[in-house]
Amino acid sequence: MSSTGDAAARSSTPGAARRSLTGVKPTGEPHLGNLVGAIEPAIAMTGEYESLYFIADYHALTTARVPEQLAHWTRSVAATWLAAGLDPQRTVFYRQSDVPQTFELTWILSCLTGKGLMNRAHAYKAARDANLAAGEDADAGINMGTYNYPILMAVDILIMEAHVVPVGRDQLQHVEIAADIAGSFNHLYGSHGYRFPIPEAVIPPETTGHTLPGLDGRKMSKSYDNYIPLFLSAPKLRKLVRRIPTDSTPVEDPKDPDSSAVFQILAQFAPADQVADTRARLEAGGVGWGELKNQLADVLEERLGPMRERYEALMEPGSELDEALARGGDVARERAQRVLTSVRSAIGIDR
Amino acid sequence: MSSTGDAAARSSTPGAARRSLTGVKPTGEPHLGNLVGAIEPAIAMTGEYESLYFIADYHALTTARVPEQLAHWTRSVAATWLAAGLDPQRTVFYRQSDVPQTFELTWILSCLTGKGLMNRAHAYKAARDANLAAGEDADAGINMGTYNYPILMAVDILIMEAHVVPVGRDQLQHVEIAADIAGSFNHLYGSHGYRFPIPEAVIPPETTGHTLPGLDGRKMSKSYDNYIPLFLSAPKLRKLVRRIPTDSTPVEDPKDPDSSAVFQILAQFAPADQVADTRARLEAGGVGWGELKNQLADVLEERLGPMRERYEALMEPGSELDEALARGGDVARERAQRVLTSVRSAIGIDR
Repeated sequence: MSSTGDAAARSSTPGAARRSLTGVKPTGEPHLGNLVGAIEPAIAMTGEYESLYFIADYHALTTARVPEQLAHWTRSVAATWLAAGLDPQRTVFYRQSDVPQTFELTWILSCLTGKGLMNRAHAYKAARDANLAAGEDADAGINMGTYNYPILMAVDILIMEAHVVPVGRDQLQHVEIAADIAGSFNHLYGSHGYRFPIPEAVIPPETTGHTLPGLDGRKMSKSYDNYIPLFLSAPKLRKLVRRIPTDSTPVEDPKDPDSSAVFQILAQFAPADQVADTRARLEAGGVGWGELKNQLADVLEERLGPMRERYEALMEPGSELDEALARGGDVARERAQRVLTSVRSAIGIDR
Repeated sequence: MSSTGDAAARSSTPGAARRSLTGVKPTGEPHLGNLVGAIEPAIAMTGEYESLYFIADYHALTTARVPEQLAHWTRSVAATWLAAGLDPQRTVFYRQSDVPQTFELTWILSCLTGKGLMNRAHAYKAARDANLAAGEDADAGINMGTYNYPILMAVDILIMEAHVVPVGRDQLQHVEIAADIAGSFNHLYGSHGYRFPIPEAVIPPETTGHTLPGLDGRKMSKSYDNYIPLFLSAPKLRKLVRRIPTDSTPVEDPKDPDSSAVFQILAQFAPADQVADTRARLEAGGVGWGELKNQLADVLEERLGPMRERYEALMEPGSELDEALARGGDVARERAQRVLTSVRSAIGIDR
């Protein structure tokens, strides 16, 4: 990632800020790996771009079938980002469902999107291949939300006229599809008063967070069930750290810090001098895993305690979260309506 | 079709009117066959139901690529229905594009719609089969608007909580798909405060208009290019009637009225005594085709002249057409917003 000056120099419209868009799907409990691998790096980009962040609650509907859960995770993921330091005064922070213009533009652009393009989308292909491998009908159990997903994702980007979209490598295709669809529109209607900026993917440089190990030493991940939830109570957090598996090396023996998940997590969160000191003491022998775990629990509580307090306050009904999302929704809707009005005129719906 | 009393007796909610919805796709010039085969029978149902009519401008976007044409045909088809006698005071008459809630509900319901259901939709299957027959990729040239079309059509029906949808036999499947999708929603979310009425297709009894012959004696149709446009100027209408092919039977010979397209069109529009008199004179001999064509031109001008005048007034910018559509849009949006608000709450987007 580069400095603000750099970003301005790259801007195609001199003087106008380049806009960056980040979407977050509310599908579960955030964990420590999300915080250092995704949330904090994304928040760090706020200074570089005019930054927009949205909670993709309508994307979650492709799988969410329990209304209480969808409502809870939507609020929870919004509270998490604010608690983690997202500043809603310096960014546009909103819910996808607060921008209804998104869905009208989805219909419009679906009319310009070849079905073949959707057939090649990774998520659909994976579901289809799994069906075929299981001897099922290719489309068994696949709903049209899942199939149309890449168009909605393109519209999230295009309706905000985003220039850059920070994504992981597995999400690159979505930005390419958005660029394709924008290109089709510009080709067909670009001479009728409106053109979409063509969005570009930005792959943030690997941060140490990407390799945060989980409780079993593998990458921390929901799918490995080896994660540390962000908002455990202090006693539960300590209990979870205590349960991290360790070997049976006696207290007095030297230990290899680099093969210990406990140490590696500590190394991400403790001050550098504490990390160096602990490494030296482990290698010298005389430090037990129990003491190391206590150290990690203290360090995590110091980091997560204030965030948890803020998260809990934000989760209360009528908190400043509601106010922030309402304000962000207003700004996002205004931009979306401006784009949609231009598009409606260009295609002949409003003349 | 039955009387108003009948309709009330069939209603599932005693005292509440059953709602009927008719959509009209603005894809070209309306002709005489449309008037007697579709427009007038549909307008005749106004007394029986709480009737809603909408111009499906966003459906046309699956094929429309010339903005000026889409805008023109949308206005033109609306003006045609009003000129033909649709009373916007007794019906809800609106443009699909004036009900943006439609598109949000389209996304929601697409998440509950199996892709397999769309694979079986007639229009898509026909396009796919044509591709395969031509040795092309199955999805070549098919856009996602065409593929998603049945979901949008379902939403048009469901967002207005329509009970009945008058359709031709070729449109039956669309109402069945709408009923399927409504059933899925009710099954999954029906206990969360909202259920869609399950819509039913109503196939209007064949009217004489369905068999109105065109200039060549076959059914009048755009695809045969044998049609009489509704709003030709009086001289052009007369000229077109004069060009209807006839055989070379001399004036004084007897003629078979039933094998003459001119007579058969006349029979649909002239008063019964005039039709009987002309039939007798043709069979007796002594009437030439020229005289018959003059008669038809007079009869058509009598019928279409006032309608054309009204159509032309309605096509003027700022005419009562704009006022009627604005009023209808308000009513339609209000109902759509009520439905969408209930649905958003049921699925967990707003809690």
